[in-house]
Amino acid sequence: MSANPVLVEVVRGDAVESTHRGRAVIVRSSGETLWSVGDVNTLTYPRSSIKAFQALPMVASGAAKAFGFTPAELALTCASHNGEAMHTETALTMLAKLNLDEPALECGQHWPMQQQALVDLAWQQQTPGARHNNCSGKHAGMLALAQHMGWETRGYIEVDHPVQVAIRECIESCCDTRLEGMPIAPDGCSVPTWAMPLKNLALGFARFGDPDQLPAMYQQAAMQLYDAVVSEPMMVAGTGRYCSEVMAELKDRAFLKVGAEGVYIAAIPELNAGIAVKMDTGSAPAAETALTAILNRLGLPVSEMRRAPEIRNWNQRLTGHWRAVDDSFSSLSPLPRRG
Amino acid sequence: MSANPVLVEVVRGDAVESTHRGRAVIVRSSGETLWSVGDVNTLTYPRSSIKAFQALPMVASGAAKAFGFTPAELALTCASHNGEAMHTETALTMLAKLNLDEPALECGQHWPMQQQALVDLAWQQQTPGARHNNCSGKHAGMLALAQHMGWETRGYIEVDHPVQVAIRECIESCCDTRLEGMPIAPDGCSVPTWAMPLKNLALGFARFGDPDQLPAMYQQAAMQLYDAVVSEPMMVAGTGRYCSEVMAELKDRAFLKVGAEGVYIAAIPELNAGIAVKMDTGSAPAAETALTAILNRLGLPVSEMRRAPEIRNWNQRLTGHWRAVDDSFSSLSPLPRRG
Repeated sequence: MSANPVLVEVVRGDAVESTHRGRAVIVRSSGETLWSVGDVNTLTYPRSSIKAFQALPMVASGAAKAFGFTPAELALTCASHNGEAMHTETALTMLAKLNLDEPALECGQHWPMQQQALVDLAWQQQTPGARHNNCSGKHAGMLALAQHMGWETRGYIEVDHPVQVAIRECIESCCDTRLEGMPIAPDGCSVPTWAMPLKNLALGFARFGDPDQLPAMYQQAAMQLYDAVVSEPMMVAGTGRYCSEVMAELKDRAFLKVGAEGVYIAAIPELNAGIAVKMDTGSAPAAETALTAILNRLGLPVSEMRRAPEIRNWNQRLTGHWRAVDDSFSSLSPLPRRG
Repeated sequence: MSANPVLVEVVRGDAVESTHRGRAVIVRSSGETLWSVGDVNTLTYPRSSIKAFQALPMVASGAAKAFGFTPAELALTCASHNGEAMHTETALTMLAKLNLDEPALECGQHWPMQQQALVDLAWQQQTPGARHNNCSGKHAGMLALAQHMGWETRGYIEVDHPVQVAIRECIESCCDTRLEGMPIAPDGCSVPTWAMPLKNLALGFARFGDPDQLPAMYQQAAMQLYDAVVSEPMMVAGTGRYCSEVMAELKDRAFLKVGAEGVYIAAIPELNAGIAVKMDTGSAPAAETALTAILNRLGLPVSEMRRAPEIRNWNQRLTGHWRAVDDSFSSLSPLPRRG
């Protein structure tokens, strides 16, 4: 198999220090592939980029309405959050609406992803709980689905629990792909993650931003989740995070979501398009730099500082920068907008 | 330019999730290349892997003896440490021997690299100082050289300061390469880092482990630094770190040193050989996995658990593992030992 092209380079001084190969694809909600680079048929674990589809059955079931989830709470169900106070407090409020306590979350616990949130917690002489897990909002949503449907809440993370079965069926129908027989593994938070071709991931997210193309049962729920994340972008990741800040810049024009190991996806309703990026190298900043290059070429302007993010050292001296490799994106030009 | 081969894969479930290309070379202290994979002429920033050569002029000058530096202190001059108490206290002891205070260190400050050390510091309601910078021992050594030689200590990080000039000359003569005209940039701790071909980095470290091949002025100093790091391996990195733990496993058979952006080097005196690895992707765990594959094939046994390091999630469930790609290392077999 030939190597995927270099999409992003890390430059130090005048020399390229590291290179990030990868694959990326833009798919229309109709299923048409508009542009791609690298092998986009390779099976790819979406990891946390799939969270919107893990939240969809819960909203579609009526659980979100029954529990009175706010837009911030809905956005948190799609989040890989920093573990800042705004995130952990929202997760606890969701649990309170379910009449459940923190130990009901089966995601495991870790110190907040964001260093300042970690330091703040330690300064308060505390240790982290499951609410600080970057997936706590997603897990609260899964508990909501279980409880609303009258299913046993315990064990909701297991592959044969009705919650995960509902999610698998949702992903299959929205992304137009079969997951049975695909590679499967536990994700960081212990729910299953199934691999699929990258272009199916992009297709699913294209449809998410153009819900008429989704199965009827998910159409209203997708609109509700989309509106929630673009109105509460800080809930989806947090302070200083690419997803949150770029969504805030682009207003309601895009829904961006990171996944571990260099995955990024975006839904762009005005283009009826979905974008999926996977860096072979697993690098998140490389995926961000590649996605920035794509968004800018599509006419969704991401601020100048993100085009070649600076690398500064502990004395704040400029040591280098990230940059997208122009040749890998040169075939990409603005797409016709929704009529 | 053709792509370097994949040296290391990240596997999740049954599928490869990410791939790490790179280059590696083994060079004899005589200059003979014994084995290589990928393009090892590519200019490479050694980053922190060069620290032993940044300490060498200080020891060779007589400064280490004059200030009574212990083996632990000498090991810390070669370290990218975790910021654990053993490291920060040793850095402060070195400064006390110079009659200098923490602000004399010009490396900048950051929270300890190791999460537990960070949490411990925050639990004590403290914030980090320059002593917690992973390079603080190296900087204390640079201050020692300046003071011993009667040079101005302030500004010792600048490229034209006599300290950095002495280091550049040391690297050039030990690695048999010219640095003038090579790419140069500030490193994370603000001292200059020059790029050089990877094989010259390996050559320098081969000679470091076979000091008869070094310029006469550095021979004794290299022996002293080698003995210090292998007798105090925890000072070079710290708890849970690959360098420290593998050096402890291998006793005095190897000196291993990590550099940022996926660099690893090793000196193997019994083989008169130096190894240099650079992952194109900048990944440290990938570099460790590649180096493990090389060490094992050379007959330096690294424990089984390091051959395919497990990836476990927040619930300690096994999700995958790192693995070296056998084909990329299959041409490497045990080398004749020193007679």
